[in-house]
This record gives sequence, structure tokens and C-alpha cells, in this order.
Amino acid sequence: MHDADAAIAAPPPMPATAPPMERRRGRTILFQDAWITGAASVAGPTEGRGPLRDRFDEVAEDHLLGQKSWESAESELLRRAFAHLCEQMGLGHGDFDLLLAGDLLNQTVATAFAARDVDVPFCGLYNACATFAEAMGLAAALCDGGYCRRVAVATSSHHDAAERQYRFPTEFGNQRPPSAQWTATGAGAVAIEAAAGQRAWARIAAFTPGRVMDYGIQDPFNMGAAMAPAAADTLAAHVADLGLHPGDYGAVYTGDLARVGVPVCEDMLRARGTDLCLRDCGVELYDPRHQDVHAGGSGAACCALVCTARILPDLRAGAYHRALLCSTGALHSTTTYQQGESIPAVAHAVTFEAANRG
Amino acid sequence: MHDADAAIAAPPPMPATAPPMERRRGRTILFQDAWITGAASVAGPTEGRGPLRDRFDEVAEDHLLGQKSWESAESELLRRAFAHLCEQMGLGHGDFDLLLAGDLLNQTVATAFAARDVDVPFCGLYNACATFAEAMGLAAALCDGGYCRRVAVATSSHHDAAERQYRFPTEFGNQRPPSAQWTATGAGAVAIEAAAGQRAWARIAAFTPGRVMDYGIQDPFNMGAAMAPAAADTLAAHVADLGLHPGDYGAVYTGDLARVGVPVCEDMLRARGTDLCLRDCGVELYDPRHQDVHAGGSGAACCALVCTARILPDLRAGAYHRALLCSTGALHSTTTYQQGESIPAVAHAVTFEAANRG
Repeated sequence: MHDADAAIAAPPPMPATAPPMERRRGRTILFQDAWITGAASVAGPTEGRGPLRDRFDEVAEDHLLGQKSWESAESELLRRAFAHLCEQMGLGHGDFDLLLAGDLLNQTVATAFAARDVDVPFCGLYNACATFAEAMGLAAALCDGGYCRRVAVATSSHHDAAERQYRFPTEFGNQRPPSAQWTATGAGAVAIEAAAGQRAWARIAAFTPGRVMDYGIQDPFNMGAAMAPAAADTLAAHVADLGLHPGDYGAVYTGDLARVGVPVCEDMLRARGTDLCLRDCGVELYDPRHQDVHAGGSGAACCALVCTARILPDLRAGAYHRALLCSTGALHSTTTYQQGESIPAVAHAVTFEAANRG
Repeated sequence: MHDADAAIAAPPPMPATAPPMERRRGRTILFQDAWITGAASVAGPTEGRGPLRDRFDEVAEDHLLGQKSWESAESELLRRAFAHLCEQMGLGHGDFDLLLAGDLLNQTVATAFAARDVDVPFCGLYNACATFAEAMGLAAALCDGGYCRRVAVATSSHHDAAERQYRFPTEFGNQRPPSAQWTATGAGAVAIEAAAGQRAWARIAAFTPGRVMDYGIQDPFNMGAAMAPAAADTLAAHVADLGLHPGDYGAVYTGDLARVGVPVCEDMLRARGTDLCLRDCGVELYDPRHQDVHAGGSGAACCALVCTARILPDLRAGAYHRALLCSTGALHSTTTYQQGESIPAVAHAVTFEAANRG
């Protein structure tokens, strides 16, 4: 006889003698068994001439990647990043239980059209340029908790697709103020899994999801200032919850506050008694001596590229033992801008630790 | 002396004698300790004249809710739904560890601007009208795994804001074909937590995230047909993974396939050997005798309203023991439509069980 209740009934409860896992401290979620086992990147042509040029898995030769539109080209960036990840790890689509991904386009279509060609269940995320750390944190929980064996995380952005959507027709060549940021073209993909053993590059130790902050900035050409309060709020909570000092980190990265936002965020942190020296993915993705990107890079690909091509390989190579990435996102749209609204922002923080602590 | 490694070091491993929790079967994630403890809804004026009129926590008197734009009105729907949830449960913002939410607007701004006024860390999701079940599944994992004590899930949509964004200027009064669907105005919010005891309305027993499916439908006025293959794929996997038969469910709901999509999905399921009789949130939200919404409702609020006002209260009242909700989302944008692309779709399934099994 078919017993429906028995089919999905709960197993017996854990014996009372099992020590409880510490899974939460303050606003911060803690993980014991969430490991990064692969990371891949595809950079656009401009990003491919920057300081990380030799570290990307692929540099696109042009902005269309053989596609008919910039939007389709962005999907292709994501597809190729995931393909590089699979190739690097010797895995097929069926080896992933879930894809957590997002991008900046309306209805995150770059991701949706890439996910169509990826035979993996897909949960779409949107927190603008903070999506990458958001996805890492949620993936870590799903793996650490035993709900998924392996999760792929990916984000993308495309300079031309974002410019024409958010600002002006790209061909218009509008003059930009010095505080403006340059949306990065590229995509990054990461594999996260439990019980990774020797395959682990690094452990995801902790995740602090951020609150939405809005200090009234209305200028979409000054997103660094709009996002700095959210980054300061999340960073202060993250390091306080973990009981860590700035010196405990080999590197603390913000997502894309760039040259305007970084000092604002550092000032706000100091006012809260947290003295962090921030590196910024938007600053490190380009070379200011020969690449005029104004305040620095931005876009959901910005911190994905720097994390996959620099932070995670550095951790794997033993350059440092612990790194923090705080991805920052501006949550406006052209509609809210035209309606005179300010720019709310959010930031999510993840702490990575080297896998081999020798 | 400050010991950074000790500060976030892993606790000792679980003793080998602890029985392993079953957390995954096929594509489906299983939960033992994820409970719904509250659900609230705010409906638009049209939805408030439909069959569920007496079941909503609030029916808005007009489409603007005192705001200056439809987009701001949609944010207000979300804010009010969350406020009703807090009031119903006697809780404040600080009693929630996380808000998982999304909507249909570009850059999900309705959610972002509502989240600005909610003092809860926020992770934004986007899977169009499938966002509600996606959020329920991820929230269940975060609670069941002990990463969050209580998570709020919320989605919204607004008819006028969606129409002018996706289709034609609302004032234009464009004629719509019979297969067109009516984007619902409203918002639903749900509280999910672990160890809920007597406060539980229902348990989230299982979650199957869906794959992106695209059968080449290009007509945004026929989203039911575009989404049916994704719903069939997820539903077939969900019930097969759980080992359940159609008769084991008191009700099986799709999100918003509406009158065109439901029979298509039922046919596709029968071809796979799964004979499910589907109820549909898009069908049940309106009264076809006096409300001409063509094929039925849609929008991220559609299944949120029916789930919070009907499915979960029915489970709580003992009307049936087990219900399945498969939210369905069309992942196109106006840009992809104008570029001649087809409409990819995704569907996520959650199974709810009554809390008191007598």
C-alpha cells in the first residue's frame, strides 16, 4: 500500500548528545562545510587590457562575441564562463544541483537566456552589483546544510548593454563626470560544494546579508557615494559578528565603490570604530595610467571578475589566509531616476579562508 | 591575545552515530523544520472584487494607494503586506533575520524601495512570477538548516506599472487577444521559521527548483503556453522525487498558467505518465462571470495572493492535509521581445503540509 505520509516523513530527530553547530552570530551566518572548488572568468576586451589580463580564462576579442546584440553577447559571456568552469573541473551540467545567478539587465535576461542553455535548475537573483556575494552566501548555505551537493554561482554585465539601458544611447557619447563608473564587460562563475577535500580552493566561512540604505544620493553618475553607506553598515556588522580585526584579513575588498566611494566608506567605518583599509574591485580591474574609466569599474561582473581571477586564486596559492569580499549594489532603475527618487543600495559580505591552513 | 582562527573556527564534527538527515531526493530538497507561521495579503481594487475578496488582509481602494506613481504604489503594497504580517504575528522588524523578495519591475525597484523602509537584511530574487515559490524554497533551507531563525518572503506586482513597462502605454487601451493575462495588483508576505511549535500554520516539506525551458513561443500575449513546459517539467520531477501520487494532495496549484496554459501543462504531464488535475492561481483570483481578465491573472502577486489568502489558510483550517504550489515565470523582457527572441520560462514547486496531523 502506498503510504503518502511515510514517503516524505521526517527522519528521527538528532540525538541530544550531538553538539549544536554554530550557524549564526548576530547578523552573520557561519558555515563549516562550504568550499570553493573552481572559479572561471571571461573578460571583455577593455578588461582584458587591464592589470588582470593574464589571469582571466578568456578575453573576448570584441564586444559582440559573435552575437547580434550586446544583450545576447552578455548571455554568451555567462555561457562561456560556466563552460570554462565545467572544463576546468572536468564536470558536466548534471554535476551541478543548482545555478544561482543574475545580472543588471531588465528582467535579468542575460542570465535567463544563458540559463536556458544550462541543464541545471536555476534560481535567479537580483541585487544589482551585490548579486555576486549574495549568490555566494546563499550557495554556501545550500551546500553547508546538505541541500545541494554542488552549486554554480555566476554573474555578468556588459558595458554597452548597461549604458544604453541605464543612461544614454551608447552612440551618443555623452560626457561623463569624474565620479562616473565604467560598467565592466565580463562574467565570472564559481563552484561551491560540501565535503570538497583536496579539491577545495578556499572555504566560505561567513556571510552577512546587508540592509538597504539610502542617504539621499540622486545622481546615477555617483554610485560610489550612494553605495558607501550600505557597504559600511554591512562591513562593520560582519567583522564585529566574527570578532575579527582588520589585521586578521589578508585583503578586504569592496565590490565597486571605486575611487569616490572607497574613502567615503572608510570614513564611515572609522566613525563606527572600524579601521579597515579597503581594496576595491572597481579600482583594481583597470589601469588608470592608460585606461580612462573615471572613478573605476562597476557592474555585476566587476567583483565577479576580480574575485574569480584574483582573490580566489590568491587564496589558493597561499598569498594570504583570509579575504573578505563586500559586493555593493545600487538598486535604482531609469524609471525611479526619472521619477526623482534617490538611489537605495545594498551590500553583502563574505569571508573566505584558504583551504590548507598548514 | 586575539586568536583570529579560534574566532570563527569550525566546531568539532558531528559524532558518527548521528543519523543523517535526508535533505535531497533527485532534484528535490527536503525539509524537516521549516514552518509557515504567518501570511498576509494586500489586494488591488480589482482583485478585491474577486472570489477571494473576504480573505485578504486589506483591499486597496484605488491603484495609487496615496502614492505619486504606480511604481511607488507597488512598493506601498509590499510595505503594507509586511506590516500586516508583523501586526498579525505581534512582531517587529528586528524579529526577522532576512527578507527574500522580488517583483516584476525593471531592477525589481518596487521591492528595493519597500526594503529601504524595512529594517531587515535583504536578498533580492528575480524569477518573474515564479519568484514566490523560489523565495519559499530558499527561505525554508535557511530556516531548516539553522542559518536564520525567521525569514520573511514577499512578492508584488501592479497591473498598471507592469502593463506600461511590458506592453503598451496603459492609457492607449490596446486590444488584447483572448490568450492574454491580466497582471494582478497586490502583494503577499509570509513568515517562515524553524521550531515553530503551536504557532505553525503549515510545514514546507519539499522544494524543487526548476530548469529554464523554452519551446519557442514568441507571443507575450500567450505566456500560459510559454510557461507550461517549465511547469510540467518541474511538477513531474517534484511528485516523482517525493514518491507521491496525485491523490496524496488536497490541491495542486500552478502559479499563473491561466486558462490557456493549464490544459497544455496537464497534457504534457499526462504524456510523462503524471495525471495531475491542476488548479491555477491565475484562474482562481478573478470571477470570470463579471471580471473580464481574458485567460486569467498573472504577475508575481498572483500566486502570492492566492497562497496567502487561500492555500495557507485552508491548510491551517484543516481543509486538506497537503498542497503543492508550482509558481511559473516568463523570463523575457521588452528588449528580448523586440529583438525577436522567444520566451524562456521557469517554474519552482513547493509542497506544504498541514502542521497538525491529528
